[in-house]
Amino acid sequence: MSSNHELISIEMGLSHDRFEYHLNRLEEWLRFPSVSADSKYRADVMACAGYTAQRLRDIGASVSVAETPGFPVVIGRVMVDPLKPTVLIYGHYDVQPPDPWNLWLTPPFEPSRRDGQLYARGVSDDKGQIYCHMAAVEELLRQGPLPVNVIFMIEGEEEIGSPNLVPFVESHARELGATVALVSDTPMIAKDRPSLCTSLRGLIYFELQLRVLSGDLHSGQHGGTVPNAIHSLVSVISKLKDDSGVIQIPGFYDEVRSLSPEVSESLNELPFDEASYCQTLGASHLVGEPGFHPYARRWYRPTLDVNGIWGGYTGEGSKTVIPAVASCKLSMRLVADQNPDVMIEKVKAYLRQICPEGLSVTVKEPGAMPASVSTEHPAVRAAASGLEIAFGVKPVFQGEGGTIPIVAEFKRILGLDTVLMGLNLPDDGIHAPNERMSLANIRRGIVASMAFLTEYGKSKAL
Amino acid sequence: MSSNHELISIEMGLSHDRFEYHLNRLEEWLRFPSVSADSKYRADVMACAGYTAQRLRDIGASVSVAETPGFPVVIGRVMVDPLKPTVLIYGHYDVQPPDPWNLWLTPPFEPSRRDGQLYARGVSDDKGQIYCHMAAVEELLRQGPLPVNVIFMIEGEEEIGSPNLVPFVESHARELGATVALVSDTPMIAKDRPSLCTSLRGLIYFELQLRVLSGDLHSGQHGGTVPNAIHSLVSVISKLKDDSGVIQIPGFYDEVRSLSPEVSESLNELPFDEASYCQTLGASHLVGEPGFHPYARRWYRPTLDVNGIWGGYTGEGSKTVIPAVASCKLSMRLVADQNPDVMIEKVKAYLRQICPEGLSVTVKEPGAMPASVSTEHPAVRAAASGLEIAFGVKPVFQGEGGTIPIVAEFKRILGLDTVLMGLNLPDDGIHAPNERMSLANIRRGIVASMAFLTEYGKSKAL
Repeated sequence: MSSNHELISIEMGLSHDRFEYHLNRLEEWLRFPSVSADSKYRADVMACAGYTAQRLRDIGASVSVAETPGFPVVIGRVMVDPLKPTVLIYGHYDVQPPDPWNLWLTPPFEPSRRDGQLYARGVSDDKGQIYCHMAAVEELLRQGPLPVNVIFMIEGEEEIGSPNLVPFVESHARELGATVALVSDTPMIAKDRPSLCTSLRGLIYFELQLRVLSGDLHSGQHGGTVPNAIHSLVSVISKLKDDSGVIQIPGFYDEVRSLSPEVSESLNELPFDEASYCQTLGASHLVGEPGFHPYARRWYRPTLDVNGIWGGYTGEGSKTVIPAVASCKLSMRLVADQNPDVMIEKVKAYLRQICPEGLSVTVKEPGAMPASVSTEHPAVRAAASGLEIAFGVKPVFQGEGGTIPIVAEFKRILGLDTVLMGLNLPDDGIHAPNERMSLANIRRGIVASMAFLTEYGKSKAL
Repeated sequence: MSSNHELISIEMGLSHDRFEYHLNRLEEWLRFPSVSADSKYRADVMACAGYTAQRLRDIGASVSVAETPGFPVVIGRVMVDPLKPTVLIYGHYDVQPPDPWNLWLTPPFEPSRRDGQLYARGVSDDKGQIYCHMAAVEELLRQGPLPVNVIFMIEGEEEIGSPNLVPFVESHARELGATVALVSDTPMIAKDRPSLCTSLRGLIYFELQLRVLSGDLHSGQHGGTVPNAIHSLVSVISKLKDDSGVIQIPGFYDEVRSLSPEVSESLNELPFDEASYCQTLGASHLVGEPGFHPYARRWYRPTLDVNGIWGGYTGEGSKTVIPAVASCKLSMRLVADQNPDVMIEKVKAYLRQICPEGLSVTVKEPGAMPASVSTEHPAVRAAASGLEIAFGVKPVFQGEGGTIPIVAEFKRILGLDTVLMGLNLPDDGIHAPNERMSLANIRRGIVASMAFLTEYGKSKAL
């Protein structure tokens, strides 16, 4: 980090008037009920795409609205110098459905400021977060040339699984060329504790069906002699993990990257209260691999969970059936450097070994790659610097246990690492009534983005 | 056994004309569509009760029709001498629904004789079987006084679980006083191989629900730290039996009666082809306690089966949920001298031991007692003699893996052992289209019953 004086001047540079100006623009954007999941909002989503494009033009970007089979992807480019780094900033202008309406204290599409919060559907997920970067670019452009090149890519289908985004990125790879991607669509670890997420887990998902008889049998007539599909499936499942939670699939951990001493140490500095975590979730105790911090188990270690199971008679009352078939859904979260295709084969081979007969294994989806970025990456360093300026405290490095598929796709298609700079809070109520984002975090987000872009501009383009 | 000359004369005594007479009477009875499960047949079931009563009067019994909250129980008594033994003959005049109609080659309620079989709904289950005893009593009464006292108890709700029978037996215990009960509602072990069933298994049935979290969680956010209800339930189930099928509940086998050498030996004489049994059921192999014949495992050994399981996401596609709750239905077949109430407590204690938290155990039904009768019982000996006369071959002793609840109730309420004299065949298609009973077995059944009643009449009343 360098030149604190310059960075602090950035924070000072966001006057009350300018912040008020940006809140008004954000509120305009939030008034569009851009619900991608419900076809009755179709015209609103399209209108929101148009507003997004106009707003990017107003801040000084050259804009294109790319049609897709669904809702358009809005691209805004501010290219200042090919020798400078280029940041591809991803976000989405669509929002979750607002239901249940009756639980909103103020209407979801009439933004309301109270108690230091801005309330509206989509303010935290994701309009408020992406807006911070739009405002930062606008502010920096008022001061002079941008310190970096910026490409905004703002889609309208994130809340329905981004069905058209990967084909779009693949067919526009040249125009999306950058040195790093930036996504602000994850939460900070806690209030006033900024964090940078440096890893995401991947995913593989199976459905198993085990048939041991041609049809269900009467447990009186045949009980004691014939196999029972549920017991057979239970036997398979019980061989997947040992009692302490260690996955028993041969070679499962071979490609798992060890935690660096830096990351290991940082975990102990994170706020974590096991008793309150258990109480919140209604769990009597935690489980998982011995010797790993709970955050390590949630972020940096692979997992295996049966997600659903069914077989035999499941209606009311009692039926004395020996079930012929039992099924389950089974998924594994992967971490760097586990390759989904390789892992799928390891899982299948083990299942064949422990259950040679009657088991059919279906891979439900193409596996999702895990993703990770080095804490030494210049953009990560610049983001850390920006967050420190804005929040007055060094950010912590964290992982994220879930999957953000586009991050792996940025790596695969564009060769880009991604900075995950979360600006909202875990209790912002995303996907729920009374979604909110604190006015303080919106301000800090703008400042953090200005400082990040400025700092990253000092690094060399690749 | 004694007096073969007399018994053989019984067989000779059933002339062609008399047999034809009985077939015609049976066909009259079969024309009533006495489907207890479907209210649209209500008047037909009532009419069938009336016919049953009239038929019993015609053979010489004094008859009463006892109303219940459902369909009536028809009682027919032929009391000849209080010093003679008394046989309580149980059967049912109701039948299964005939659906699917389109698979019947001839209409289910228009009895049809072809290929040595009589086809009709209910002919094998149970009108044809109970009719054999009615015909036997009529034939014997044509020859002189009955050798024993007989009480027919023919109900109309067997196919819907006999909801009113136990209260009826309890409130009429005095009038139903007998020295033995006789039930013909089970199959012979194979064609031309008559058998006497000397044991029935009991049943206890549980529903388990295991909750480990207050609500389902996202497997990305929390996977690796929180318990998964399905894995926890799998762990419970996997501790119920070992890999060879031996039940692990402490004391589970304590009250199980050892097989007598006579029964053990007889098992090896029974027809059993493991390969064809497996092929018929679509099983790749058999399971169960090592060291016991498959028939021993099906009849004389207790069993444990999970009958249904459910938890987590079971719909289409993939959902990455960590389930908070998982449930299963669990039942055990009991054998003499296992008491259901005692066994329920043993199961509960073990479940508490292996799963101290979050598991709720519901006992679904009052347990059913196992039942057994000694092969030395005079009525069993007389029945064996009767079957040998009728079939020309000694019957084998067998068990039955299922539960016939009324048999345990006869023991509990009336203090009676029950002779289970099956007269139909395993492939008679009961509960299915084209139900049938062979004309040969109807004739043999009548002769067997005549010989049984005659032989049993020589033993002393208790």
